[in-house]
Amino acid sequence: MTGSPPVVVVAPDSFKGSLSAPDVGTAIARGLRRVWPAVEVRARPMADGGEGTLDAVLAAIGPGGQRRTRTVGGAGGAPTQAGWGLLAGGDEPTAVLEIAQVVGITDAEGMQVPVGARSTQGVGELIRALLDDGIRRFLVGLGGSSTNDGGAGMLAALGLAWSDAAGRPVPPIPDALASVDRADAAGLDPRLAQSSIIIMSDVNNPLCGARGATAIFGPQKGVGAADVARYDAALAHIARLAERAVGATAATNPGAGAAGGLGFALQLIGGVFRSGAEVVAERIGLDEALTGADWTITGEGRSDAQTLLRKGPFVVAEKARTRGVPVTLLSGAIDPAALAELGRVFDGCIALPAGPATLAECIAGAAALLADRAEQIARVFAAGQRVSLPRGARPGQAPA
Amino acid sequence: MTGSPPVVVVAPDSFKGSLSAPDVGTAIARGLRRVWPAVEVRARPMADGGEGTLDAVLAAIGPGGQRRTRTVGGAGGAPTQAGWGLLAGGDEPTAVLEIAQVVGITDAEGMQVPVGARSTQGVGELIRALLDDGIRRFLVGLGGSSTNDGGAGMLAALGLAWSDAAGRPVPPIPDALASVDRADAAGLDPRLAQSSIIIMSDVNNPLCGARGATAIFGPQKGVGAADVARYDAALAHIARLAERAVGATAATNPGAGAAGGLGFALQLIGGVFRSGAEVVAERIGLDEALTGADWTITGEGRSDAQTLLRKGPFVVAEKARTRGVPVTLLSGAIDPAALAELGRVFDGCIALPAGPATLAECIAGAAALLADRAEQIARVFAAGQRVSLPRGARPGQAPA
Repeated sequence: MTGSPPVVVVAPDSFKGSLSAPDVGTAIARGLRRVWPAVEVRARPMADGGEGTLDAVLAAIGPGGQRRTRTVGGAGGAPTQAGWGLLAGGDEPTAVLEIAQVVGITDAEGMQVPVGARSTQGVGELIRALLDDGIRRFLVGLGGSSTNDGGAGMLAALGLAWSDAAGRPVPPIPDALASVDRADAAGLDPRLAQSSIIIMSDVNNPLCGARGATAIFGPQKGVGAADVARYDAALAHIARLAERAVGATAATNPGAGAAGGLGFALQLIGGVFRSGAEVVAERIGLDEALTGADWTITGEGRSDAQTLLRKGPFVVAEKARTRGVPVTLLSGAIDPAALAELGRVFDGCIALPAGPATLAECIAGAAALLADRAEQIARVFAAGQRVSLPRGARPGQAPA
Repeated sequence: MTGSPPVVVVAPDSFKGSLSAPDVGTAIARGLRRVWPAVEVRARPMADGGEGTLDAVLAAIGPGGQRRTRTVGGAGGAPTQAGWGLLAGGDEPTAVLEIAQVVGITDAEGMQVPVGARSTQGVGELIRALLDDGIRRFLVGLGGSSTNDGGAGMLAALGLAWSDAAGRPVPPIPDALASVDRADAAGLDPRLAQSSIIIMSDVNNPLCGARGATAIFGPQKGVGAADVARYDAALAHIARLAERAVGATAATNPGAGAAGGLGFALQLIGGVFRSGAEVVAERIGLDEALTGADWTITGEGRSDAQTLLRKGPFVVAEKARTRGVPVTLLSGAIDPAALAELGRVFDGCIALPAGPATLAECIAGAAALLADRAEQIARVFAAGQRVSLPRGARPGQAPA
């Protein structure tokens, strides 16, 4: 093994606000080549169902996948070009959806509309259009949404009718949901029943209550402190009505509170909730890449106790260790308080900074820092390889 | 080798302004034990002739060395307790002197006196007292001095007489040296001729000129821009007189400009200039510690292009590589601009910060950061060890 260049799986998550996962991987590979010019890098950029999931899956799939766009309503109602992926391989075509492409919290136009008036209607429009195209398999990445409508908008676009006590339609936005008196599932698109929907997320919260969508994720979307209880109650209210109409339950399922309650609505129509990172790992062929590999490098913008909740790097580590491949974490920052636990999962947790530095400096210099740090840990790794040879046989050893 | 705990030489320099070299070593060892509870740590704290040299040598020598103190004049003339070390081993006793113990730039009392009135007289007093005690072997660590007197004070205390045109004695301080008209070496202590003086420093500058003591190191000691030329000329003037009186030359020797010209004066009386880090490495038995070792960790507060000028970590690396022992640099900060060059010397250069952090945070948390980082690079090293086994024989590998 020593002497021949190693096989290294490079499977980082994105560095949010700095570099996409593929760019992180490119920088790491650059550093590794400085140590082993002939290193075999197996780049498998990771994602966890949030932003970047679509790109990660398409990048790994290659010619079998195509990026498409569709114009649907954004969170505020204005038309938005939503990207999605068509995976042609296998028995049946599969659509990869990223909620953030429709109702993303980084969409400036949607964010101009108050959260009480934002809706996931466009998500339903996109699914309906894909059903029209004959697609029956969906991978839906939650994460990065700006909405808190319990998925009422998506359900409406798919045919579930919300009406008030007078029988008039109620718009599926948080500010109106309290006036819903009736949910009618008679018009719900029948093709959903023939479809497979995999929901990708790393959020386990229920729809309502102290750990629910509104209480935990509402504030960062603009839900004021005075509105948390009101919106939470509205979601509980429409969830009861919708569950009765559909004849299923979902509000207390883990993940029902993901994406402002879209996790509830998708489960209500038959979606199966799975760890986003695990689905992505399967789709990008991580297990195959790890077979016969010598080392794995993963990472993310910031690693802390949350990382252990099955985030991308954790899933990479789990799969690598199962195959006996060492796995090192290379992150922008690593919370010292979580280091003891992270140390049990990773063969070394290394942060980016080369010295005292501000967050802005780290973000601006991330690609160069990543290449430098990858190079340096590769040198340490190579030193370890050298030493495990019998002492007499070590390269470069001078006579005593 | 894999399976049995490794032998690791831990030979860091001090982290200036933060931790002594022994404390750095203790923190690194703590981190290593988290990975290999039975690791054999060979602690060899390093120094380069500056502050910490005495402690490093005494710590390594053990019972054969004793720390002593002697009251002599400080840079400003007030009595100061100067530490020195008596090494009893070998054929003849050796005294280890650290100039900073007498005229240290961190001595608040001495620093209250303007640099134009500071003198190295106390250094000469200390040497004379040790000559009285029968000592004839000296290791003198330069570095960290507050003086810029060309060693005139030391020479005076050892019997060289400075006088003006009227034959009156001239005080050996920068502000008075221009009035020296004559240097008389007749009274120079004859025991110096029977003595061996090793000067430890990493400064190669000559006594005078653009690269001289005053121009390069004067400003940080308080020499104003207006005084640089005047003091530089005064040193050149007395150096000529002293060289003629003694019948030797030294002003243009490398290192004559160390410690405000003390490097000149010590060479003039027969001192031999050597790399401080190399002398310390010999005295602490670094070569012996490296024999049969698996890995070496060294480091310093900040690594940059200066590190390559035979600073402590560089000397450690050189000795380690000669013996085929990998050597990793673990420093508070690492200048990215020097990383390519450092990467050719070290098997990995790793910095302390776990994420964005200020210098003050890094200094305050240095011990914990060192232990954490040492642990993490040890995990990477161990991963490398694991991988160099034939693939089938790797511990923890699951069946394919």
